[in-house]
Amino acid sequence: MTLRMYDLAGAAPDRRFSPYCWRIRLALAHKKLPVETIPWRFTEKAEIAASGQTLVPVLVDGDRWIADSWTIANYLEDAYPNAPSLFGGAAGRSLTRHYSSLADGLVSAIFPFVALDILHHVADKDRDYFRTSREKRVGVTLEAFVADREAKLPAFRASLAPLRLTLKAQPFFGGDGPLYADYALFGPLQWARCISPFALLADDDPVKLWRGRLLDCFDGLARNAPACDV
Amino acid sequence: MTLRMYDLAGAAPDRRFSPYCWRIRLALAHKKLPVETIPWRFTEKAEIAASGQTLVPVLVDGDRWIADSWTIANYLEDAYPNAPSLFGGAAGRSLTRHYSSLADGLVSAIFPFVALDILHHVADKDRDYFRTSREKRVGVTLEAFVADREAKLPAFRASLAPLRLTLKAQPFFGGDGPLYADYALFGPLQWARCISPFALLADDDPVKLWRGRLLDCFDGLARNAPACDV
Repeated sequence: MTLRMYDLAGAAPDRRFSPYCWRIRLALAHKKLPVETIPWRFTEKAEIAASGQTLVPVLVDGDRWIADSWTIANYLEDAYPNAPSLFGGAAGRSLTRHYSSLADGLVSAIFPFVALDILHHVADKDRDYFRTSREKRVGVTLEAFVADREAKLPAFRASLAPLRLTLKAQPFFGGDGPLYADYALFGPLQWARCISPFALLADDDPVKLWRGRLLDCFDGLARNAPACDV
Repeated sequence: MTLRMYDLAGAAPDRRFSPYCWRIRLALAHKKLPVETIPWRFTEKAEIAASGQTLVPVLVDGDRWIADSWTIANYLEDAYPNAPSLFGGAAGRSLTRHYSSLADGLVSAIFPFVALDILHHVADKDRDYFRTSREKRVGVTLEAFVADREAKLPAFRASLAPLRLTLKAQPFFGGDGPLYADYALFGPLQWARCISPFALLADDDPVKLWRGRLLDCFDGLARNAPACDV
């Protein structure tokens, strides 16, 4: 039975822009598992109630509903052990956990640059929810939140120094080829490029070059998705 | 033949305080390899000239001289394959590379808090070298560099959020037990506590609790070293 995944979509159903869903899209491709993605909007909480929570990605495998990207990645690794490994073994799995944490940090670091751009792409019915929930979180209007993003850019780029250091030494965090660690960190960058024209990365940044290698994976799965490409 | 390691020391020869040397001390203990550490000062470049560069750690294994902590860790893994693994396999090794980059970033993040304290502990003959080289690097006197460290502390602690997230999920970055990834990140924290009484971490910080678990490893190898304990 084909796997199904609830995947955050914008006003246009093919604009998919959750950093957490993108991780899993690439993880599914890595494991060569076909998936039917179901466009889902922020306010469609009832559709995923069977998962026991209110966020995507949600994976449906037969009668199993699995939520949370790290939990889903582990489920895929255990349920499909003969497919290519996402972690490269037990130690690799433990070591990958921190990449998931780093990726969560990257989402937080990127949000001040793209918050208002997201609003421009969300479905009409999601707009009030998105603005209200995010403005409550950040304490100011989305317009005010992103107003000084150019000034914040140098510090953001500087914060990527450790990523850059590793990517000068090897093509992927997983080594010669990508592993889930790569997909986890790629998710926030794919989120940004799907939803915002803002140039977060300089063209010669090793992080952007690595992003390009991941855009090319799986016959351009991520590159071919609708994006505000930069 | 017993391995030898050149290990940065202060005025007191048993005060060892290089974040990079501490990684390797713990890696050697992990692999159950006895080592004779040789106290070394910043200005003793001639003593390690055979390594082809001027920084410690330098490992001497018979007639082989190996420099750079990441190179040494890889050497130990390959030269002593029957000893406990530092990486947990090929994927683990690739995934560990980024921990080394993160640890380098942590050294840079901690330096503004401990720079002047280091000066108080270095050997007399190193004092001018240390002050001159570091003040050139940071562009101000060491006194000015650390003057606002209390004000910088909240941002430093906030920057550890990803570490904290992982350490709430598992006891070590390597999983149930430590791997080289843990030793790499521990190095900067051990450097700080060996040389400075400044309380970088709150007592209930999961990062400090993890640090405590590493201090206990190998019969308290790191805990028993001379330190300005905090």
